[in-house]
Amino acid sequence: VTALDGDLCPFCEGQEHLAGREILAWRSPGGEADTPGWRVRVVANRLPALRVESQYAEPTAGVLQALGGLGAHEVIIESPHHAANWSTMTADEIRLVLWAWRERMRDLRRDIRLKTFLVVKNVGAAAGATLDHAHSQLLALPFVPLHLDDEIAGARARLSKTSHCAFCEMVDEEIARGVRIVSSGETTVALAPFASRVPFETWVMPRHHGASFEEESDETLLAIAERLRDVMQRLHEALKSPPYSVLLHTAPVGEGASFHWHLEIVPRLTPVNGLAWDGGIHINPVSPEEATRVLRESLRS
Amino acid sequence: VTALDGDLCPFCEGQEHLAGREILAWRSPGGEADTPGWRVRVVANRLPALRVESQYAEPTAGVLQALGGLGAHEVIIESPHHAANWSTMTADEIRLVLWAWRERMRDLRRDIRLKTFLVVKNVGAAAGATLDHAHSQLLALPFVPLHLDDEIAGARARLSKTSHCAFCEMVDEEIARGVRIVSSGETTVALAPFASRVPFETWVMPRHHGASFEEESDETLLAIAERLRDVMQRLHEALKSPPYSVLLHTAPVGEGASFHWHLEIVPRLTPVNGLAWDGGIHINPVSPEEATRVLRESLRS
Repeated sequence: VTALDGDLCPFCEGQEHLAGREILAWRSPGGEADTPGWRVRVVANRLPALRVESQYAEPTAGVLQALGGLGAHEVIIESPHHAANWSTMTADEIRLVLWAWRERMRDLRRDIRLKTFLVVKNVGAAAGATLDHAHSQLLALPFVPLHLDDEIAGARARLSKTSHCAFCEMVDEEIARGVRIVSSGETTVALAPFASRVPFETWVMPRHHGASFEEESDETLLAIAERLRDVMQRLHEALKSPPYSVLLHTAPVGEGASFHWHLEIVPRLTPVNGLAWDGGIHINPVSPEEATRVLRESLRS
Repeated sequence: VTALDGDLCPFCEGQEHLAGREILAWRSPGGEADTPGWRVRVVANRLPALRVESQYAEPTAGVLQALGGLGAHEVIIESPHHAANWSTMTADEIRLVLWAWRERMRDLRRDIRLKTFLVVKNVGAAAGATLDHAHSQLLALPFVPLHLDDEIAGARARLSKTSHCAFCEMVDEEIARGVRIVSSGETTVALAPFASRVPFETWVMPRHHGASFEEESDETLLAIAERLRDVMQRLHEALKSPPYSVLLHTAPVGEGASFHWHLEIVPRLTPVNGLAWDGGIHINPVSPEEATRVLRESLRS
């Protein structure tokens, strides 16, 4: 496919050389690397924010400290087809995306300097995407970023107080009440979080306890893929192909049992005001119960 | 002024009844409340996120907890003139805006339930502004939000380690190096922060130590207003009237000496991607040194 500005899309099948050498791919037996015939493909980010060749240097003495950009920054090309998205892809195709995330994490965690994996998928210009072709980004960091550290600290405090995983408790309470359950299956659930930050924020997660995404089985990945496809069809139907971000929150390497991995789907319908941008203080005009009602009714099936 | 959608602007002089009853105003002697003749005017937000009439209720037993919206949410109408902005207003006019912030804080802090003041000014639709007319918002919260708590914790840790205010140290280091100083005067400085999150982020602050904005003198407010006007003229010239947010970071009530208040001016030139939105993880393509060079050269004076 040729993009609007006349450049060839580097993520389309047949243009593998434009995206760079593949780190991982799912392709038919006998297929050769960096050629057509793949279903999902992972390459290094062309403008990486982090590199494994960097040093995570000791901080210096002054008050202004810079650390080397140690880490990894990879791009998962989610489909050979330019126009694919999670509402039109099959559950099995989405499963392969999750498979690629998992396999890359299992490989990268052998580097003991890396502590945290972040996966982000931005769809649409309003969500900061610079390429249309379905893709996600995987970052591996040598530290635990503040937002994840805060979330884990909350879960850990709850665990030591009640001996329960806060996320498992939340899922149980939500399923009992029902008003914020967008859809659910035997092993997975999609819900509008109680304190939704923006209209139609939706979380997808396993109902069983699991701290680390990369420990999940193929069966769980397929079940999550089915749930994601269902939610994306609802969001596309209700909001007419909105811009959105998807964020994976998963426990840092070796963090143990006190977390519960989940995917946060964040529609990006309105500009981010200063308080939200700077302080994460969100004023949300649509209640999660109302968003749930709309999403539930959006698919007739 | 009549807005594009045909409604009268509620913030323009002569339309005082549309914005509601004034809590505070600077007006000529003998002038009557809620009539023309003011230079700055404070009213309650029409759709307040927080109210002093609310209860900050005890959390309930479950894992999902809601607290009452106790607090205050006020709007500072910064000028009677619809088209005014901080690059065209005089320093004295900007001083009156800062005066209104300070006076409202001094009044609100008498309510011992309130702990934190946030001021945010959003300019342009991309920064989340819904009205064109120059205004800012003041929020008073019954708790210290996470982003401010983290910032204060960092300053407190540095203080106990070095016996110095981290911000005073930063200002000293930056003035000595010079490469990130956008402009400075005897008592105030504007600098591009070392770890700028977005292109052309600029902080304005007093050079003397001061934890709380509401403790500052009229003289300091005027000096800060002069610095803000200078920076805004540079930003308007260099970036052609960009959308931006301004955020006041000031110590919570009674927080003591371990903080240093400052204003963060954040141009909003590009959409916020998912990692920045969710985790505050910013990838900034313009170095603060380059931004400083551009802003320094933007005004011939």
